[in-house]
Order: sequence, then C-alpha cells, then structure tokens
Amino acid sequence: MGYTLFFNPLSRALIVQWAFAEAGVEPELALVEWEDKPAALFEANPMGKVPTVVHHHETGDKVVSECAAICHYLAEMEAPGLLPRDEEKAAYFRWLFFAAGPMEAAITNRAMGWEPKDAKQQMTSGFGSFDRVVDALDTWFQNNDFTCGDRFTMADVYVGSQVDWGLRFGSLTDRPSFRAYQSRLQARDAYKATLGSPGG
Amino acid sequence: MGYTLFFNPLSRALIVQWAFAEAGVEPELALVEWEDKPAALFEANPMGKVPTVVHHHETGDKVVSECAAICHYLAEMEAPGLLPRDEEKAAYFRWLFFAAGPMEAAITNRAMGWEPKDAKQQMTSGFGSFDRVVDALDTWFQNNDFTCGDRFTMADVYVGSQVDWGLRFGSLTDRPSFRAYQSRLQARDAYKATLGSPGG
Repeated sequence: MGYTLFFNPLSRALIVQWAFAEAGVEPELALVEWEDKPAALFEANPMGKVPTVVHHHETGDKVVSECAAICHYLAEMEAPGLLPRDEEKAAYFRWLFFAAGPMEAAITNRAMGWEPKDAKQQMTSGFGSFDRVVDALDTWFQNNDFTCGDRFTMADVYVGSQVDWGLRFGSLTDRPSFRAYQSRLQARDAYKATLGSPGG
Repeated sequence: MGYTLFFNPLSRALIVQWAFAEAGVEPELALVEWEDKPAALFEANPMGKVPTVVHHHETGDKVVSECAAICHYLAEMEAPGLLPRDEEKAAYFRWLFFAAGPMEAAITNRAMGWEPKDAKQQMTSGFGSFDRVVDALDTWFQNNDFTCGDRFTMADVYVGSQVDWGLRFGSLTDRPSFRAYQSRLQARDAYKATLGSPGG
C-alpha cells in the first residue's frame, strides 16, 4: 500500500522527496538513468517524466505525474493537516496553479531565450511578461509569510521550490520577499532532510 | 456571499462560466475591456488577467485566478459531487496540472513559433515535445471517457476546454479520442448554456 517514486537526484524529483518528507511517508525509490529509462516508467507515464509516482492503492495502482499534482495528492492522501482550510483554499489553489502555469512558463521560456516581443505576444503567451509574474508573486510574499497566509501548507513545497530553485539558479529575480520566504522554508526539518543545507 | 467574475466574452473566462454553470452558481459579471481594464481587477490580481474571480466569503473576499484553479475551487465550495472520490484523485490532479502546465505550454509555445530544437531543449522545456503531450493525452482518452475514468468531474471542464478549444482553433492535433471526448462534453446542459452549439 505504499508509493513508488521514479527518481533522479538531479531533477525536480527532489521537490517530491521534500513533499514525501512533509507527509511523513517514505516511498520506494526507482532510480531513473536519463539514457536508459525503465519500461515501467513509460508504462506509468508515456511522457517518461521524472518525477512520476505510483500509489499502490487498495483499489489498484494510481499514477500521479506533474510535481504540483504529486505534492497536493500526498497531502490529500497522507497529510490532511497540510491541506488548506476552507478560507485558505482560494490562495492555495491560485498560487499552486500560478507556480505550475505562468510562473513555470515564464522561467522556462526565458531560459530557452523565448520571450514575448510585444503586447499581442504577451497576451497570447498566457503569462504576460516575466516581470509581471515576478511582481505578482513579490506582492503576495511582501504581505504573507506563506502561500495561504500565515501557515505552512503543502502548496509551499511546490511554490516554495519554484522560488528556492529560481533563486539558487538565478532564473528568478532576487527580491527581499523571496529571500525571506526561502529562509522560512529552509528552516523546516523536512526541507533539511531532503534538500540539504542552504548552500547545497 | 456570491462571486464576482472579471469577464470578457472573447477570453478563457468562458471556461469559468461553464464551471459556474456546472456548479449551479451565477456570478456577478464584471465586463473587462482590454484597453481599459478596471482598477478593481488589478487590485484583485496584479497580473490583470481575465478570468479572475473574487469570492465574497464570510471570512472576507478571496481572490482566485488561473482557470484551472477557479474550476477546482468552485467544486470545492459549491459542488462536492464534481470533486474526485479518493480513488479518482490521482487522475483528477494529474490531468488538471498536465493540462494547465505542459499541455498549455506546448500549445501556446507552438502558437508563438517557439519549439524545442533538440533533446536538450526538450528536457529543459518541461513538456518534451508537442507530439509527446498529444500522445500522452490521446492514450488516456482512448481508454477513459473522462479525466477520472467513467464519470464527469470538474477536471473535465478545464481539461475538456483545452481539448475543445484546441480542436476548434486547430491548435491541437485532431485525434478520434479527442473528438469523442469533445462530443461527450458538448452534450452537457451546462456546456450548451455557456459555450453554445458545437459550431459556436
């Protein structure tokens, strides 16, 4: 009745490891080599993406892919205390999808050298502009300690990883509100156990 | 205790209108002109994006942005029958985030003329390639009538809209499984009431 995590230590699967630690669950790790991906991974997820999780559920194996979905699913199944309360749900889902959608697109596209050239392209792109994405998130974290306000929830594993990784790799603009948020996350035991020291 | 929907009829706000209809709730519509966006929209959402929803909740106004988040939030608040059961949650969140993340990115980036040129770019892009995204979704809908299997849930409003709009605008590859899924969605009363006839 456990979980299998298709994993590579040099990938976003680390985010999911942090989520498992927050949920207090230890998955079976299936190491994925980039050049020799196992057939079982493609059976579970035709995209062949890492992380992919298989939940060995009493009603049969369930596949979850997409980092943000895996984080939220683990809270649903294993850690109800990390789910949002009614009055926190708007912020929880808003920022979870913001981080997985426009923020991810803005950061990735910039890394690829793809940026909207004019207002029409900004509208089509779905994220407007990189700077607008950064400003929107910055405004939130200037006024809130966590995704849902004053309390850590599972959304912070994903939203927080986007901020943490963005600052580490220089792909996100450095802002004081992001640094303060990163420090709050790095102080957590589950973060330390999986993502190591702040310099790591 | 209702909802305000910042709306434009030529936008993805139509998806959210369908979600409201599925939830049996009528929001107050705040029409947004592209060239003259209201200050209240920017107050709610610094991105100035349509759709944005304000839920006038008993604990204060709650802002929800991002189409997929709004759809899910409405099910959480108003339509528990459209939420996934325990054994449906893996598929529900997996495909909701798949449609909002890699699928949205693959479709939008192709529309912008941005496509990964080699294996390294495919890995960085997060969605691999457009064809792999299409194949993954096609495989699912060859074997399942809906996002969660055999039952319509709120995830189908968002995942289904991505398929429906993609087929209408020619931005998604035409596949029999997508056409069959689209027909099932277009048969719904709430779809007809908001998105009109199949040709509309």
